[in-house]
Amino acid sequence: MTSKKLVNTVAGCADDALAGLVACNPNLHLLRGHRVALRSDLDSLKGRVALLSGGGSGHEPAHAGFVGKGMLTGVIAGAVFTSPAVGSILAAIRAVAQAGTVGTLLIVKNYTGDRLNFGLAREQARAEGIPVEMVVIGDDSAFTVLKKAGRRGLCGTVLIHKVAGALAEAGVGLEEITNRVSVVAKAMGTLGVSLSSCSVPGSRPTFELSPDEVELGLGIHGEAGVRRIKMASADKIVTLMLDHMTNSSNVSHVPVQSGSSVVLMVNNLGGLSFLELGIMADAAVRSLEGRGVKIARALVGTFMSALEMPGISLTLLLVDEPLLKLIDAETTASAWPNVAKVSVTGRKRSRAAPAEPLEVPDSTATGGLASGQTVLVLERVCATLLGLEEHLNALDRAAGDGDCGTTHSRAARAIQGWLKEGPPPASPAQLLSKLSLLLLEKMGGSSGALYGLFLTAAAQPLKAKTDLPAWSAAMDAGLEAMQKYGKAAPGDRTMLDSLWAAGQELQAWKSPGANLFHVLTKAVQSAEAAAEATKTMEAGAGRASYISSARLDQPDPGAVATAAILRAILEALQHKGV
Amino acid sequence: MTSKKLVNTVAGCADDALAGLVACNPNLHLLRGHRVALRSDLDSLKGRVALLSGGGSGHEPAHAGFVGKGMLTGVIAGAVFTSPAVGSILAAIRAVAQAGTVGTLLIVKNYTGDRLNFGLAREQARAEGIPVEMVVIGDDSAFTVLKKAGRRGLCGTVLIHKVAGALAEAGVGLEEITNRVSVVAKAMGTLGVSLSSCSVPGSRPTFELSPDEVELGLGIHGEAGVRRIKMASADKIVTLMLDHMTNSSNVSHVPVQSGSSVVLMVNNLGGLSFLELGIMADAAVRSLEGRGVKIARALVGTFMSALEMPGISLTLLLVDEPLLKLIDAETTASAWPNVAKVSVTGRKRSRAAPAEPLEVPDSTATGGLASGQTVLVLERVCATLLGLEEHLNALDRAAGDGDCGTTHSRAARAIQGWLKEGPPPASPAQLLSKLSLLLLEKMGGSSGALYGLFLTAAAQPLKAKTDLPAWSAAMDAGLEAMQKYGKAAPGDRTMLDSLWAAGQELQAWKSPGANLFHVLTKAVQSAEAAAEATKTMEAGAGRASYISSARLDQPDPGAVATAAILRAILEALQHKGV
Repeated sequence: MTSKKLVNTVAGCADDALAGLVACNPNLHLLRGHRVALRSDLDSLKGRVALLSGGGSGHEPAHAGFVGKGMLTGVIAGAVFTSPAVGSILAAIRAVAQAGTVGTLLIVKNYTGDRLNFGLAREQARAEGIPVEMVVIGDDSAFTVLKKAGRRGLCGTVLIHKVAGALAEAGVGLEEITNRVSVVAKAMGTLGVSLSSCSVPGSRPTFELSPDEVELGLGIHGEAGVRRIKMASADKIVTLMLDHMTNSSNVSHVPVQSGSSVVLMVNNLGGLSFLELGIMADAAVRSLEGRGVKIARALVGTFMSALEMPGISLTLLLVDEPLLKLIDAETTASAWPNVAKVSVTGRKRSRAAPAEPLEVPDSTATGGLASGQTVLVLERVCATLLGLEEHLNALDRAAGDGDCGTTHSRAARAIQGWLKEGPPPASPAQLLSKLSLLLLEKMGGSSGALYGLFLTAAAQPLKAKTDLPAWSAAMDAGLEAMQKYGKAAPGDRTMLDSLWAAGQELQAWKSPGANLFHVLTKAVQSAEAAAEATKTMEAGAGRASYISSARLDQPDPGAVATAAILRAILEALQHKGV
Repeated sequence: MTSKKLVNTVAGCADDALAGLVACNPNLHLLRGHRVALRSDLDSLKGRVALLSGGGSGHEPAHAGFVGKGMLTGVIAGAVFTSPAVGSILAAIRAVAQAGTVGTLLIVKNYTGDRLNFGLAREQARAEGIPVEMVVIGDDSAFTVLKKAGRRGLCGTVLIHKVAGALAEAGVGLEEITNRVSVVAKAMGTLGVSLSSCSVPGSRPTFELSPDEVELGLGIHGEAGVRRIKMASADKIVTLMLDHMTNSSNVSHVPVQSGSSVVLMVNNLGGLSFLELGIMADAAVRSLEGRGVKIARALVGTFMSALEMPGISLTLLLVDEPLLKLIDAETTASAWPNVAKVSVTGRKRSRAAPAEPLEVPDSTATGGLASGQTVLVLERVCATLLGLEEHLNALDRAAGDGDCGTTHSRAARAIQGWLKEGPPPASPAQLLSKLSLLLLEKMGGSSGALYGLFLTAAAQPLKAKTDLPAWSAAMDAGLEAMQKYGKAAPGDRTMLDSLWAAGQELQAWKSPGANLFHVLTKAVQSAEAAAEATKTMEAGAGRASYISSARLDQPDPGAVATAAILRAILEALQHKGV
């Protein structure tokens, strides 16, 4: 069975992909009759040197993503992993020549097919009188002994596009550009690693790896690498890669050593998660800096892919200040990243955590319950919740994951532990705020966040006053926050149902002369009735909302818990006769 | 078995990935003690509104890739697919407030955990007196009936980062930014499709798909989608997606219709090849334009991923000119692409193929053989190659893929067919050029390219003169081009060996009074001896270079073929007595 692909036809892949890139990028034009993309502002390049590159498709965003002011003038694309047609290369050379450019540099990755086809087009164009030069890029650092075919062209080619593009944009001539990029091309190395292979549309994967192996030193056409290594940590794999590519006994090494200044590319070979790409980039920066190498710029992204291969390549280019200026020069190429013109090594990478606000004792510091009374209320709430643990879990098993009792018990034990550390704050606002932080940290999950939200919001009206209207306003604020961020409404079969019923009764506290216990008792009764009524409700929020209402015939455990908390508060206050 | 990942530890994934992004991007700072990245130029933002976003990790480059001038002020990252900690969100709010910003907008994707945690941090910050607003983004167009939880936040969130960032950079106040992005957020829709699932580090894949199914309407946390559809072409899948997301009977549709102007995002969910991304982008542009929709801008790339999920999402945002200005505004955010400020729909997407150079009859038009003689020489060469087909294939089976004879026969038949079409050019230069194009097109492969190169280069010295020194120079030019682009040298066991031996003898033609047949006979004998000598050579180039020399005890088929061609030419000329 061939691999699944989002394509129209296997034969049309390369055409469709290039058409898509050109359609979405107004800086590009297709050259009619050819698989060629050229700058749409070609006619503004009179008197300048044109830069053409390309190769097989399957390396996107290379090469069309690097066409633009300050990078390539155009690209010629072959079928997937196949050299482009000579006729199309020649057509591209003729098109840029006829637009008034004064010469063309072909930037070619070192593969036999590419060398021959670009070479042939070059010879034909020269026979027509068009000045054409060609540089062949081989940046592969995989092979430790010399291969007759030379080093393969890999991701480093994109840096050559950038350097040549900056020179051409600056008006430099064909011969000088050719000479300068030839020198730059010798000062870089690339090495790849992958977790698995890729598959050409219409075909099977190109090689197989066992689950505990990774492939090292691979190319960009799905071919196997120079060796397989056992799966290891990101740090170890990066260390091994950098050792290999900078080892002077490797004939294809890049001579990076302590004190060297480099541009680092961390290139996604196609299918690796960007999470892992970031982890590998982190490992590469640490490993290089640990070797005393100065990283002048780091480019992280997908530049030269091998279809969906889940791996990366690292490229190192030795740089000095003049070369760095060319890397930093402006470009409109869509796949060149926004890179800050600041050295990676040597800069500060973090800032100090912000100052915590000072705890100012609020004006209600003595307006609440006496410390002993607060302790008694909280202890009764905790005892109630601990006693309900099994009951709440049983209710929750019918509709959720069965941990509602456990979660509330965890909260209760956290409060008990906190009470042992010292007396709770005397100010109601500070008390609720502290409880909010405690539950958030120790209770966890959505319940912890919802209680935290309720308490944080409820604390606000109690900062100025702590009379009965203020307590009613606190309940209102808590309910509002809970609804706003939790997206539950009364009637949705959640803990909000009982709290909301209680809150309605507590409105009475806002009237002059309202009675604490009379109103609170009604509120608790109303909360309990509301909790019971959740039995017949359809779940509208929370995890139970994924269960059909026919299967829910017990009350919601969250609503039962909050009603029980309110009753515990009432009883503790009555017992002490506030 | 859990999936293979390039990580250090499962627990440290989110920290390492963020550290890597910050290390490589000098525009970012980490906030010490928190998984928070902030603009490194934070202190330049006095008096402006700060924009914070974030969420679980695993969506890279979102969200840290969108921090920068003109986009976000900072981001808070949770563990993989887990909401960030309230304490870290609060620390980020405090940090931007303490840097002198005048208020903070939290841009939150609509997930319960994110709403609660960002909401709680907001309430706590407000309790400290910091002005904080919050917008919850739900751009998912998957669900056709209303869900209580609302639409999920997907890739469209990145457009909100951009719009809010442009407004904040322009100095707009907190309330106005909040209001404007709330309106924009209602004018978009996103739908995803994937070939398979993804796996959280340390876990197995989140769902399984059969080889002929794709998942439609999925989120960005590896969860399954709203339905599975049979694998189909890119065009059909895109049509189905756009039908679904713009269908007015779908409560979560985006009201795009004929005449609408949109920004299109084609987002890689992580592991799709960029080749397929381009194909899907092409399909989306064609399908939308076919519906009369005007695509103002198209963004193609990886913006909001779900680890390595091999799929895409399409986002449509309805735009007018003022909104487009905000999308077009400058930003330094590393993951925002270079987008040309030109409408995608309505512009020209191709340019005419270049003019072919006129064929000017060269001065040597009558300097070659008479047309009849040329035909006889070519016919003898063709007959020789056809006679050698099996022998050459047999030689090639020992070292290559056994098609050397087949390839040369194909060339011979192509030449025979061409000769039937009319008389060959009288000018030797034009004859060789025509043969070059013919072999390139009909012979194919590396052999076709190498013969093409040889003939193209050899034609050049024959343009001015066609005497014996010019023919010797033609041989030199052909050999030089073949070595230069083919990277083979004499002694590498290739077709070059016999040609090169012949070329050495043909130097004698450059001396005054040299004899055509005497020299050519020596050249043919020398070529045949060289072909025979390849028996003992180690292959240095071409496919045979991958075979150990011990296994090669037959001559190289390419060298045998070229020697035979030279003898056929000699015999045809002698037979006719030139």
